[in-house]
Amino acid sequence: MKRPVGVGLLGCGTVGAGVASILQANGGRIAGRAGGPVELRKVAVRDVNKPREAAIPPGLLTGDPWAVVEDPEVDVVVELIGGVEPARELISEALRRGKPVVTANKEVLARHGAELLALAARHGAHLMFEGSVAGGIPIIKPLQECLAANRVQSIMGIINGTTNYVLTGMSRRGVDFETALREAQALGYAEADPSSDVEGYDAAFKIAILASLAFETAVRVEDVYCEGISRITPADIEYGRELGYTVKLLAIAREEEGRLDVRVHPTFIPDSHPLAAVSDVFNAIFVQGDAVGELMFYGRGAGGLPTGSAVVADIMEAARRLRRGGTGLAPGPRRDLPVKPVEETVSRFYVSLRVVDRPGVLAAIAGAFGRHGVSINSVIQKGRFEDPIDLVFVTHEVQEAHLRRALAEIDQLDVVRNIGNVIRVEGPDA
Amino acid sequence: MKRPVGVGLLGCGTVGAGVASILQANGGRIAGRAGGPVELRKVAVRDVNKPREAAIPPGLLTGDPWAVVEDPEVDVVVELIGGVEPARELISEALRRGKPVVTANKEVLARHGAELLALAARHGAHLMFEGSVAGGIPIIKPLQECLAANRVQSIMGIINGTTNYVLTGMSRRGVDFETALREAQALGYAEADPSSDVEGYDAAFKIAILASLAFETAVRVEDVYCEGISRITPADIEYGRELGYTVKLLAIAREEEGRLDVRVHPTFIPDSHPLAAVSDVFNAIFVQGDAVGELMFYGRGAGGLPTGSAVVADIMEAARRLRRGGTGLAPGPRRDLPVKPVEETVSRFYVSLRVVDRPGVLAAIAGAFGRHGVSINSVIQKGRFEDPIDLVFVTHEVQEAHLRRALAEIDQLDVVRNIGNVIRVEGPDA
Repeated sequence: MKRPVGVGLLGCGTVGAGVASILQANGGRIAGRAGGPVELRKVAVRDVNKPREAAIPPGLLTGDPWAVVEDPEVDVVVELIGGVEPARELISEALRRGKPVVTANKEVLARHGAELLALAARHGAHLMFEGSVAGGIPIIKPLQECLAANRVQSIMGIINGTTNYVLTGMSRRGVDFETALREAQALGYAEADPSSDVEGYDAAFKIAILASLAFETAVRVEDVYCEGISRITPADIEYGRELGYTVKLLAIAREEEGRLDVRVHPTFIPDSHPLAAVSDVFNAIFVQGDAVGELMFYGRGAGGLPTGSAVVADIMEAARRLRRGGTGLAPGPRRDLPVKPVEETVSRFYVSLRVVDRPGVLAAIAGAFGRHGVSINSVIQKGRFEDPIDLVFVTHEVQEAHLRRALAEIDQLDVVRNIGNVIRVEGPDA
Repeated sequence: MKRPVGVGLLGCGTVGAGVASILQANGGRIAGRAGGPVELRKVAVRDVNKPREAAIPPGLLTGDPWAVVEDPEVDVVVELIGGVEPARELISEALRRGKPVVTANKEVLARHGAELLALAARHGAHLMFEGSVAGGIPIIKPLQECLAANRVQSIMGIINGTTNYVLTGMSRRGVDFETALREAQALGYAEADPSSDVEGYDAAFKIAILASLAFETAVRVEDVYCEGISRITPADIEYGRELGYTVKLLAIAREEEGRLDVRVHPTFIPDSHPLAAVSDVFNAIFVQGDAVGELMFYGRGAGGLPTGSAVVADIMEAARRLRRGGTGLAPGPRRDLPVKPVEETVSRFYVSLRVVDRPGVLAAIAGAFGRHGVSINSVIQKGRFEDPIDLVFVTHEVQEAHLRRALAEIDQLDVVRNIGNVIRVEGPDA
């Protein structure tokens, strides 16, 4: 296929708008990696007259989703309507026409995934769904391909951002469930009717999808045991803390002697577990495989751009397959970017000095820093009435060359015995 | 290709042995996902008579690596020799013959990656190298495919397990660099000559590979600014702690106004950063993309089985491509695993009770737990001379049905006002 690959969107809410804006903003890069241009051709929405954020040419909008599926100019169908019907029928029809389908719809996959995958195989079309679980975090392809040589032993995931935000709020600020939920609602992290998230149903759909892939079986969402977080109290969280635990809504799937253990419930995990540090709306999936050992995938589990990132990656793979000739993956460097000399890079720095404990020392050193444009964020002085003492500085952001010049001057000061260590500091400049 | 896909190994050290054992242990699963059997055909080693761990039929061993590349029965060449020559020549010859090559050799890729990728493209063969960076952690394919719709803004990685182990030891136990290094050597986590790890060269090769992929350019390893960890002192670590920082050897790559900033050096990161919790020999790579936001990939960055997991995944992809007809990816469930009822699952439990503060209460409750086979790991009692008080138990592992029966009995006790919360506990049973 030499002409641009045409994309049709079914639905244009948050994720659809994300997809449209990524296709627009990164069109050049996407064409380079997909073997040619990828173009938006048609977008089905409920109300074509509603004002919308995404810059979609009005001529592309239609109120009829079937028009998208049937349009011969639409090569790849992207289903973002959500729910079971008419999503299932639309996906099925696209697959029957041999069109690859990309979906971020966890519910239709959790309820009809096996049937839709079989239909796709029969018609030689592909059904891709990286965006259906954990937003932009790559987890479907890693499970299908990167870990394909492993027998997966278990999956444990924080795959609902709303409940993680609520639990993080309860843990950090000691507020009760209702208060933390209202805060999440005020920030748009929880819906007006939060039950799908709070009761664990959303996570149940997602773990059904992940467990089906990892264990090569069809997990019915009705078989997933499910408990929500509404009964967790501040006292539980406090007792857990004393015991060294953090509470998370975990989705768990394990194979045990030919049976699956699949559940969603609040769980205490040791504070040292990598999942314990996953806060706010972040998601993370912890996978244990017989060869690879422990893996964790961490990132933003929702939102138009993160989920759009996963959807567009699937669209690009569909485009590469439609074009066949090679994988379309970058065969080598496309550009020739020069590397910046380290002296020109900008960092914050930790600087430790051994100095004489004498009035005016700090002023002398601070003066040298100041003359070279190095401003100081914090100072620690250790030892008193000793000689020498340690003086530790953390700078604000500064070009490395300036810091080096300041240090050369400081090294010459009488009061400075020696410069200890200089270590770069990452993280926001306070 | 209907016959089994033949694999030839160049080198059979730790990773080669891992590859051989994964192919053997998970052969059925691998055949199912690779569109047919994948078989080891020939293994080139330095000394064919040396006793080796991996169960490799002696008939497959050869002392001549060229015999592997040239063997018409070898469809996929796996290069695990390491270093530049003769690895580069062997890979080149295999690609010229149109054979896909899988390598875990960071040095040859960092020094000659662009040239080898171009050669692969000219001959329509594939060069795959998931195992070259961060062992079993999927990062190459996620960068090439899953994040292909993103403009990558930065990569920050802990991609050398030895130095992370040393820094973790220094941080946790306050020992100096030399002591922590000797401990790592005693455990086999550091080599007798540790300079390649400790001076950051190993990480420099890997970040050159990652930056080349993420920024679609050819980063020369000579251009990567590199500082090791040998100058870090316990005092630096202690001052960092007071400032809220953890020290890590980070490999960093960023695009800034048409130039690359690529470096490896010890870095202080805020304790709250997800990379700060990456301890011991674990690796993690933090990626920031314009659409996806922040992502992190975490796991074991070295070892025969983890790296073998990545190498075999690449072999399977090569096999699927050689067979073409479809992707060979599971088109749907292959098995029909039943889901275990939650009552039959085994967990540890946190149980909070509101009880009357009276002598004998603990004995009554503990007795009820005991009668149902629930053994107690820890108890917290809160409040004194109040009524009621909180009594919190954490159990050892127990089948859920047994716990429920115990709780039913406890709920009937006079001294128990009510059962508060029951929350499952993950993590090792102490």
